[in-house]
This record gives sequence, structure tokens and C-alpha cells, in this order.
Amino acid sequence: MFSCRRVLRLRQVQLSQRGLNGSHGVHNDAKSVPKRGRVIFSGIQPTGIPHLGNYLGALSNWVKLQRNAAPDDELFFSIVGWHALTLPQNPEELSASRVNMLATLLAIGIDPKRSVVFYQDDNQCHTELAWILSCVTPIGKLRRMTTWKSRLADSRNAGSDSEVDESLLNAGLFTYPILQAADIMAYRATHVPVGEDQTQHLELSRELANIFNRTFAARKRFFPIPTQVYTPSRRILSLRDPTSKMSKSSPDVQSRILLTDSTSKIKSKIQASVTDSILGVTFDPVNRPGSSNLLTILAACTDESPEEVASRYEGKSHRELKADTADAVEELLKGPREDFERIRNEKGYLTEIAKQGAERAKERSSATLKEVRTMVGLS
Amino acid sequence: MFSCRRVLRLRQVQLSQRGLNGSHGVHNDAKSVPKRGRVIFSGIQPTGIPHLGNYLGALSNWVKLQRNAAPDDELFFSIVGWHALTLPQNPEELSASRVNMLATLLAIGIDPKRSVVFYQDDNQCHTELAWILSCVTPIGKLRRMTTWKSRLADSRNAGSDSEVDESLLNAGLFTYPILQAADIMAYRATHVPVGEDQTQHLELSRELANIFNRTFAARKRFFPIPTQVYTPSRRILSLRDPTSKMSKSSPDVQSRILLTDSTSKIKSKIQASVTDSILGVTFDPVNRPGSSNLLTILAACTDESPEEVASRYEGKSHRELKADTADAVEELLKGPREDFERIRNEKGYLTEIAKQGAERAKERSSATLKEVRTMVGLS
Repeated sequence: MFSCRRVLRLRQVQLSQRGLNGSHGVHNDAKSVPKRGRVIFSGIQPTGIPHLGNYLGALSNWVKLQRNAAPDDELFFSIVGWHALTLPQNPEELSASRVNMLATLLAIGIDPKRSVVFYQDDNQCHTELAWILSCVTPIGKLRRMTTWKSRLADSRNAGSDSEVDESLLNAGLFTYPILQAADIMAYRATHVPVGEDQTQHLELSRELANIFNRTFAARKRFFPIPTQVYTPSRRILSLRDPTSKMSKSSPDVQSRILLTDSTSKIKSKIQASVTDSILGVTFDPVNRPGSSNLLTILAACTDESPEEVASRYEGKSHRELKADTADAVEELLKGPREDFERIRNEKGYLTEIAKQGAERAKERSSATLKEVRTMVGLS
Repeated sequence: MFSCRRVLRLRQVQLSQRGLNGSHGVHNDAKSVPKRGRVIFSGIQPTGIPHLGNYLGALSNWVKLQRNAAPDDELFFSIVGWHALTLPQNPEELSASRVNMLATLLAIGIDPKRSVVFYQDDNQCHTELAWILSCVTPIGKLRRMTTWKSRLADSRNAGSDSEVDESLLNAGLFTYPILQAADIMAYRATHVPVGEDQTQHLELSRELANIFNRTFAARKRFFPIPTQVYTPSRRILSLRDPTSKMSKSSPDVQSRILLTDSTSKIKSKIQASVTDSILGVTFDPVNRPGSSNLLTILAACTDESPEEVASRYEGKSHRELKADTADAVEELLKGPREDFERIRNEKGYLTEIAKQGAERAKERSSATLKEVRTMVGLS
């Protein structure tokens, strides 16, 4: 969540019973709250046309969450433009990415009738709550966050976090975990699907919910303590340099497959992908990153484990693996690509969906903020 | 501005020609903007019933600014509740202070037809703009601000800033100069009356306006560079300990005169005020802080300089000075006190005034934010 580039995970994580497949309407952390459905919140930054790594990371998980949700679960999916501002952006590109991300969510199957889909920047309740939370967030806790260091390093193309000069840090990047907490807490969300790299931020949200409840809510559990929903995460690597992850920022466009890539582009990129000269196919991410990456991609498309897939390809060639992977990716992306190309041009429809989403998001979060204002003394 | 306790100034400051008395409708800093009236913004924290120090500091200056404004000048006066949250507050007291501050502004002569009077926390545009500005504010600039150190020291009753442990610092207190900048910039204000202790913060607002214009507005002057309006500042001291300023936080209620104090209370507090045993009256703030404080108060009431007043009292006794000071303070506060007591009970009227103020503030700032969103790429 929260960053296309951050949804890539280091290893497969088991499906949690309370996560993608589970839908028990009980908050194990919120005993004082009457039993009801989960409130699930997740956000993604608008950062260009999503690539295969984004899709197999956060986005397809959102669709699964929606599919497997219990009838009384509520889902909020937000395109978090304010977070994007924490690093320099080209405004025209950001504006286009924002709409493209909405079109993508609809194209891959997020149903705006079932889930609340909205632009974060359409709902000022997020920044209001962020300010209020900032007044109970010790600076020391922000300083211990590691994410801003790595994001700053990424943005400066620094090799490691330690090369990053703190003087380049802006206040937005430093405090954005507070805005993330506000994103979640504005809807009093109980469940948040996040990758491992965001665990630290969710922990801050949990702490802030606790601090707020203790300070202003007479120790009652006004804000649920949000629970992390583990989602299966796949680290999809660059097709040209399988030692690094697939990334929108790589200068080599052959290194990634975009949601908008044509059948022939998908085929040519996968055929040209870097593998190795060892005979046969085995899943060995350390010694054979290129072939293993293709196995990971194929496995994600067929909803198997890479090991399972590898066992079928033991005696086969890279050529066969590549051909089958290209077919599977095409099969996976074909529907979303067609829908995306259609929806992205329906400007009126997109505007209407965004408007409706914003209204539902505002209605819900305004109720939260009304109570918050009373509790802190600003009413 | 922004803090009752911060409006006390170290020395008299000359009336600026472009400040309280001037009303030239020209922005000398905004050459690309067509000539029109000034846009004046100021804020004050809701921190209990104002005392004489607050009144003779910021509040009476606001009334003068309003009186001397040119017809095409616009004035925005805001009760900045979000800033109050940067230090621990009792929510019930804060809520009462918020309404009392509005009643005070009306009682002392702020005219809601002429000026836009509103609660900051009724207008989320402030926090939205604060977030956007935070993304272009280097952390280093905030660290160099001295105000958070002294506010933290004040709140911890530490003797000096160096005793303050940064671990006690919350993100709100650290970043509130950004919210101040947003308060000003949301109205594209051109003029800001601030005391010397806030000069550093206004400087940050000027820098942020410049950074924003440079980064997002194609170097055009979308945000005016706000000009500091120097206001006559009087450092009113404690009546019990004239080495420290008059303060709402002193445990000795005899040390301060509140706007709500009765005639007899004013008289008894001034009669009991600490002076010295030197015969005669002279204005000598260093060696005779108690008598000099009374002279400062009397001079403020009669709109003279303390030296002028002192010359009239050369051969007189402290008893006479105290009696005349008490009469002058009573004369000064009588009208506002009566109006305050009346207005504070007109809950419906206060709610209506706040609502109208919020609407006017939102209308103006929404127009700013609409353009800002387009410029940064979030539309």
C-alpha cells in the first residue's frame, strides 16, 4: 500500500486467515466495540501506468480482498496523491497518473458500488486529522522510521540509506507516516493490508490510536487499533537486470511490462528477458534470478507457487518457459488492459465515480472528525 | 499574533507607515499583482479569558488596524485552535476559551461585517495547504526556529531553552510554523501584524511563498510575499512580580487583570501591585520595574508614551499613580467587559457569526486551494 514501488515484497507471505481469505466480522483488538464487519482501508500512490510488479503486488490483492469480504465488511481504497508530493513530481504527469490509477482500479475489478474508491486529496478530513495527530506524535518516533531514509535514497539514486543527507529531507516526507495514520483512522479502519516494508508505519498508526484514545477518549477505544492484513507478496524483478526489482523508474523500458503493453510487446519483452545459460529450468532465486523471476511471474498468473511451476518445467527449455509466461501474462492482463483503455477515455464516468467516492469518504470521515473535535476541545 | 502569551513585546515599536496607520493599497512586494487593497491576516490562540497584557498587545491593535484600513483592504482575524493543540490542553477549557475569544473579539470592536472573523478549525483548507507546504519545507529550516524551544521550555516550566529535552517535542509543535504559513497563504494575505517574537515565523512564510512560486507557479508571484506590519507592542508585566510578564499561567491571580474583572477587582489588584519604596515616580524599567509597569499600563490606556505620563507624575506618590491607573484601566475595560458579558451568553448569535465567518473564509481559501491543487498536479 501507499507506494507502487513499495508493494514489492521480499518473500511469499502466507495468506492470513483474517486476511485475504478470512472475513470474520470480529475485531480481536477492539473488544469494547460491538461485533460488526471489518473496516478495511488501503491506499496507493498515483505513480504512472502500473507495471506487472504493482499489479501482482498490491492491486490484485485489493481485488481479492473485495471478493472475499463478508457482506458487512466495508472497504475503502484511496489514491493517495498527497503522499506523492513528498517526493518531487512533474505536476502534469502526476495529474495524469492520478486519473490513470483510478481507471486502473476500475479496470482490474474494484467495484465502486461495493468499495469506496476515492482520491485522498478530495477529502480534507485526512489533513485535519493528520494535524491533530501530529500534536501527539513525538518527533523521536518519526526519526526512528526507516522508510523516509530509503525513499530519500531512492529519489537521489543513492546506493544506500547511509549516503542520504538529512538536509534534503522535507517536512512532508518526515511526517508522512502521520498522514498515513490519519488516512486509516479517519475511517476508524480495523484492518489494513500492508506489505512488510510498511509494518513500521502501521505500528505507528496503532500507537497513535492508543495515544489518542488514552489522551482524549477517556481510555475508551474510540479509534480501533488497526490490524495488519498480510497479503501474498511477490517480488517481481526487472526483465533486464534480475538482481533489482521491476521499477517504473528504470531507464530501460524493456525491463518492465506495463498494464497497457500490447500482446506483441509482452511477448517481445519476455523473450528478450535476461535468464542464464544453464540447461533446464529450476527455481533458484539466488543463483538463477532471471529464470526464477519468470517462474515467479508464471506462478502468480496461475495462482501456484513457483516451486510447483518449476517442477513442471524441469526438463524444458527457457524458450518454452518464456513462451508460456508470455501467454500467461497476456491472459492475465488482456481483460484489465482492454477495460483500462476503454475507461481511461470515459472522462465523465471517471469524474462521477471520483465524486461519488469522495462523498462517501467524506460522509464517513466527517463523522469521525466531528467526534474528534469535541474530544480535543475544538467545538 | 498566534499566542496570547506571545503578543507581549520587548520594547515599543514605532508605528509603521504601512502598518496601523497606513493604508496604501499597494503591495510593494507584489509588482505583478494589480494594485488593490491589502489582505491582512492575523491569528490568536484561544487561551482563556484575555488579560490586560493580551488586550494591550495584539487585540487592541487589531481594532486599530480595522479602523484605519482603507476601504479596499480585506481583514481576516482567526482564532487558531489547531495551534493551541501543540501544547497539552484541557479540552473543556479549550472549548470554552474558543467561544470566549470570539466573544472578546466582538466585544472589543472587531466588526464581523467589516472583517472576516472565524475559527481556524472550521476551515480545513488550512491543514490541506499546510500539508502541501510541508512537502517543500526543509526540516533544517524548522530546526532553526527558536520558538518551539521556548514554548516547550514555557510549558515545562524550564528556566531556559537549553534545559528543554527534544524528546518531549511533538511533531505539531515542531511543524506549526508551516501551519502558520498556511494560515496566511490560504488567503494570499499581503500583510501580517506580528510581534518581534514571530518575525522568524513570518520569514519562513515568506520563504515558503517564494519556494512555492518558484517550484509550482512558473516563478509567477501566485502567493504574495507577506509583509510584516509592525504593531505597537507593550510588555505588560505581572502586578505581583514585575520581573516577569503578565501571564495567564501564573498561579497568583492577583498578578493579572482579566477582561472580566469587576471595577473593585481592578482597583484592589492595582492597589496591591508591587512597586518600590523610592519616593516619587519615574519611568525606569530596569531599576523600578513595578512603577514603570504601572506607567506603561496608564500610558497605553491614554495612548501616550510612558515617559510622557511619567513627567506628569514626577512629584506624585505611588498611591496617586495606582489610583489613576486603576481608573484608566476601568475606563478602558468597562465597555468591552460589559459587551463581553452580554455577548458570551448570546450563544445563537456567536454560532451564527462563526458560521458566517467560516463561510467567507472557506470561500476565499477554497479559491486559493483550487489553483494550488492544479499547480501541484492534484486535479
